[in-house]
Amino acid sequence: MIIAIAQTNYHIGNFERNTEKIIATIAEAKRKGADLVVFPEITIGGYLAKDLFRYRSFLDACETSIEQIAASCVGIACIIGAPVRSKLTKGKQLYNAALFIVDGAVKDTVHKTLLPDYDVFDEYRYFEPNNTFKCVDYKGNRIALTICEDLWNEHFPSLYPQDPMIELAKQQPNIMINVAASPFSESHFEARCAVVTAHSKRHALPALYVNTIGAHADIIFDGRSLVFDEKAKLIDVLNPFAEDLRYYQLNGKELVARQLTTVYKEPESIVNIHEALVLGIKDFFAKSGFKKAILGLSGGIDSAVVAALACEALGSTNVMGVLMPSIYSTGHSVDDAMDLVGNLGCLHEVIPIKEATEAFDNMMAKAFKGKENDITEENIQARVRAIVLMAMSNKHGYILLNTSNKSEAAVGYGTLYGDMAGSLGVIGDVLKTKVYQLAHYINRNGIVIPENTITKAPSAELRPDQKDSDSLPEYNVLDAILHRYVELEMSSKEIIADGFDEVLVQRVIKLVVGSEFKRFQSPPILRVTRKAFGVGRAMPLVAKHPF
Amino acid sequence: MIIAIAQTNYHIGNFERNTEKIIATIAEAKRKGADLVVFPEITIGGYLAKDLFRYRSFLDACETSIEQIAASCVGIACIIGAPVRSKLTKGKQLYNAALFIVDGAVKDTVHKTLLPDYDVFDEYRYFEPNNTFKCVDYKGNRIALTICEDLWNEHFPSLYPQDPMIELAKQQPNIMINVAASPFSESHFEARCAVVTAHSKRHALPALYVNTIGAHADIIFDGRSLVFDEKAKLIDVLNPFAEDLRYYQLNGKELVARQLTTVYKEPESIVNIHEALVLGIKDFFAKSGFKKAILGLSGGIDSAVVAALACEALGSTNVMGVLMPSIYSTGHSVDDAMDLVGNLGCLHEVIPIKEATEAFDNMMAKAFKGKENDITEENIQARVRAIVLMAMSNKHGYILLNTSNKSEAAVGYGTLYGDMAGSLGVIGDVLKTKVYQLAHYINRNGIVIPENTITKAPSAELRPDQKDSDSLPEYNVLDAILHRYVELEMSSKEIIADGFDEVLVQRVIKLVVGSEFKRFQSPPILRVTRKAFGVGRAMPLVAKHPF
Repeated sequence: MIIAIAQTNYHIGNFERNTEKIIATIAEAKRKGADLVVFPEITIGGYLAKDLFRYRSFLDACETSIEQIAASCVGIACIIGAPVRSKLTKGKQLYNAALFIVDGAVKDTVHKTLLPDYDVFDEYRYFEPNNTFKCVDYKGNRIALTICEDLWNEHFPSLYPQDPMIELAKQQPNIMINVAASPFSESHFEARCAVVTAHSKRHALPALYVNTIGAHADIIFDGRSLVFDEKAKLIDVLNPFAEDLRYYQLNGKELVARQLTTVYKEPESIVNIHEALVLGIKDFFAKSGFKKAILGLSGGIDSAVVAALACEALGSTNVMGVLMPSIYSTGHSVDDAMDLVGNLGCLHEVIPIKEATEAFDNMMAKAFKGKENDITEENIQARVRAIVLMAMSNKHGYILLNTSNKSEAAVGYGTLYGDMAGSLGVIGDVLKTKVYQLAHYINRNGIVIPENTITKAPSAELRPDQKDSDSLPEYNVLDAILHRYVELEMSSKEIIADGFDEVLVQRVIKLVVGSEFKRFQSPPILRVTRKAFGVGRAMPLVAKHPF
Repeated sequence: MIIAIAQTNYHIGNFERNTEKIIATIAEAKRKGADLVVFPEITIGGYLAKDLFRYRSFLDACETSIEQIAASCVGIACIIGAPVRSKLTKGKQLYNAALFIVDGAVKDTVHKTLLPDYDVFDEYRYFEPNNTFKCVDYKGNRIALTICEDLWNEHFPSLYPQDPMIELAKQQPNIMINVAASPFSESHFEARCAVVTAHSKRHALPALYVNTIGAHADIIFDGRSLVFDEKAKLIDVLNPFAEDLRYYQLNGKELVARQLTTVYKEPESIVNIHEALVLGIKDFFAKSGFKKAILGLSGGIDSAVVAALACEALGSTNVMGVLMPSIYSTGHSVDDAMDLVGNLGCLHEVIPIKEATEAFDNMMAKAFKGKENDITEENIQARVRAIVLMAMSNKHGYILLNTSNKSEAAVGYGTLYGDMAGSLGVIGDVLKTKVYQLAHYINRNGIVIPENTITKAPSAELRPDQKDSDSLPEYNVLDAILHRYVELEMSSKEIIADGFDEVLVQRVIKLVVGSEFKRFQSPPILRVTRKAFGVGRAMPLVAKHPF
């Protein structure tokens, strides 16, 4: 039997486009002689459509799509993920299902057993879990078919007494297939490989792990579907961060690739982060129907890195950089930003903000009488810049990219409705020290980001001679603490036990806690770590955080 | 046996203050002769501390608090909700528990069986569910003790084969007690009464339903704990939207109130909404440590209603209204706003915005060359006002209240980083037609909100002679459609079948869908309906919504 893996990118809720692509892929696989083509989890509807699942119109559209796909499935079979209505009188209205379609109809339906509810996942909100197990038979083969977390049981409560693969293995399958929607984060690839290897080894079965690819605002799926032979040896890895369609020949338990395969070597972490961010920008624009991005260029490293990523994702003629010098901007800021514009070949405007900041000084004079200058005036500058950028966006149809990095988002070093504005937080999950790594990677084949931008001391330039280090600890120390507190969810005691200064740890955590209210109003942030700010980190707002 | 119900307001994570209050309440109940005092769900830690539950420091603090409370529990017993660590090697690390404490120690622990995961709830993210059932024995009484949704089983999947009350009833209890954290929404009180009545009647048991009270940013708990005798007759309702401590005498299954009770009459819906919003503001400020609020006063009804609510919650001398007329503001706008200020006795400033809007006109002239005036210039005005308000906030320590109503939030009739700014959305879950009802209710004892504010046609006044009805359908029709689409989650077909114009329904839903990205960056909104914008309505961002 020839099995094709269709690692596809879909647009949530865009049934017309998705269905057309699925049908075309099935036709292509059929032409190439495939007996079976396998698509990822909830390819119909899109993972995760969230509360759209609560609308009858959405579920009706899923059913129509299934009918259309089934009608095209003649002379070939497919396995595809879809939400399927339950007929229960109590409980959830849906299953997270994998459909086995052949001869124009759905022949078997497998329901997901282990429903994740951690970080960005919330499947238990929508789906009824499965508790019956049956393999899918086709052309003399018996397939142990599971859905994503069905292979990961350590997070799941005692409600789930069964390990789906152990139950299915009792029925003597000759292959295991898992349809997945497993998002990218640093080091998650290794975890996936380990999990699938363990099942393949334990049950002495070849394994296809079919992952989705594509970004949906915050969440980025990296593809890299996995293929193991019956000795649990990894024999193929599908494209990282790109669609793919590949073919495998199955004879009994013997699984071999039909195309040439090269040994996949996991690149350095920063390469994956770079690819993920580029895909994140690209899909955000493609799926929201926009082409052109705008961002403020300060001459600093954050905006330079975001500009370079945007040019790679959208093409440099679709990217507008706006220089908005104030009376505190240094000469080198404008020069560095102009060098960047030159290197990238993107559009630019220079719009000094002095006139507006002076207008606010005058307007507020009476209400501020007798008060010293303070952070208020710094915030006014940042907010004036946001008005300029949003005005450009409104007038010319650009989408504003936010350039805040994770370190400053964490400690609240940013102005709400000012530099925290934007439709997409491009590097909001990238700590400042990693932003430097990204800059070096972007410059790998020659200078794109000006050297001076990389080497000068970071500054918000909102008052004379300001440096980030006036208010914040050095970024290498700050980031090490933030990694532990935010990403590893360690308490202060545990961080201090790791060798960090007690006063500093307490101060940093206090800043993180004190800026929850700002992050609540952040744009969606491209997720590249195991714990990004956003829906995956749910914090109460008017709470005290004992740390 | 004398049982006290302690309907308490706590501050999430504020262990010092909460523990002190709990211990003082136990002492007070003991002085009044109580044998047992019952507190609501997760009174220790606070419902719902969300991802704080993932930090060891938080769970340690919960355990310390339990020890301190237990030490004070001598000569009296208490039942209190708390998160309790599980000792499982797999699954969730916590239980949502009710502790029975007597003689200085935790004697029994009941775990919650039915974990909600819908709307604002996400307990399955944190807690392991219960599957063993045992009543609590004390002074010759046997208590069927359950936790909140344990009484509500229709939403729960087939994973939960058992109805906790049926299991506990087999052990012949003489009373049922439910400790709850059930948030306010219109008409939810009746639903609670029906559920508790049904259990009381089915098992012929007196019932105490002990609810929490207090607001936590978006979610407002209304208290109104319920007391039923063994004939399922409602014999007492504790304070709405306020703390309370009341006593009941239990002999066998006979339960009587020790204090005078009056028959509780559910008031008109708008009265509850008013009380909920006042509590929401009050607790937001008290729990975040702020005293003073600021808001823009346009002369329109939304800002007038929010100003009146804020004055009631915080005292009029803690409320600052800022009038920010532009060249498009009509004379009556300023007059109406000044009348309101006079009626309320709050602080005010008048800060015209002409100078800043002109500055932006000049600054953008080159970049906008050849382009007509459009929505860009309207948005600049709204954003200039936000800068003024945030500058006042930064300089003087005011917290900005957002005045957007639910109708405009729904259709995106508002400016991101402009009138959508603020720390708390006070009426973001109140449809425009209900805002009028609120205004009339606020004026019940005399004019607070000027009549002209109520009677004039709504306008954003961002261009000459603008009226809301230029861009939007009449609010009574709009709100009827929004109620169905957003709150009842009906699809367009179903709404049209209810008698609404097809073109209009499609147009309204398109507006709602098209403004998801704006609402993503909204402040937290006080929830008063069954479906508010915010965490309880989880929508994908770059999705297509088939409607």
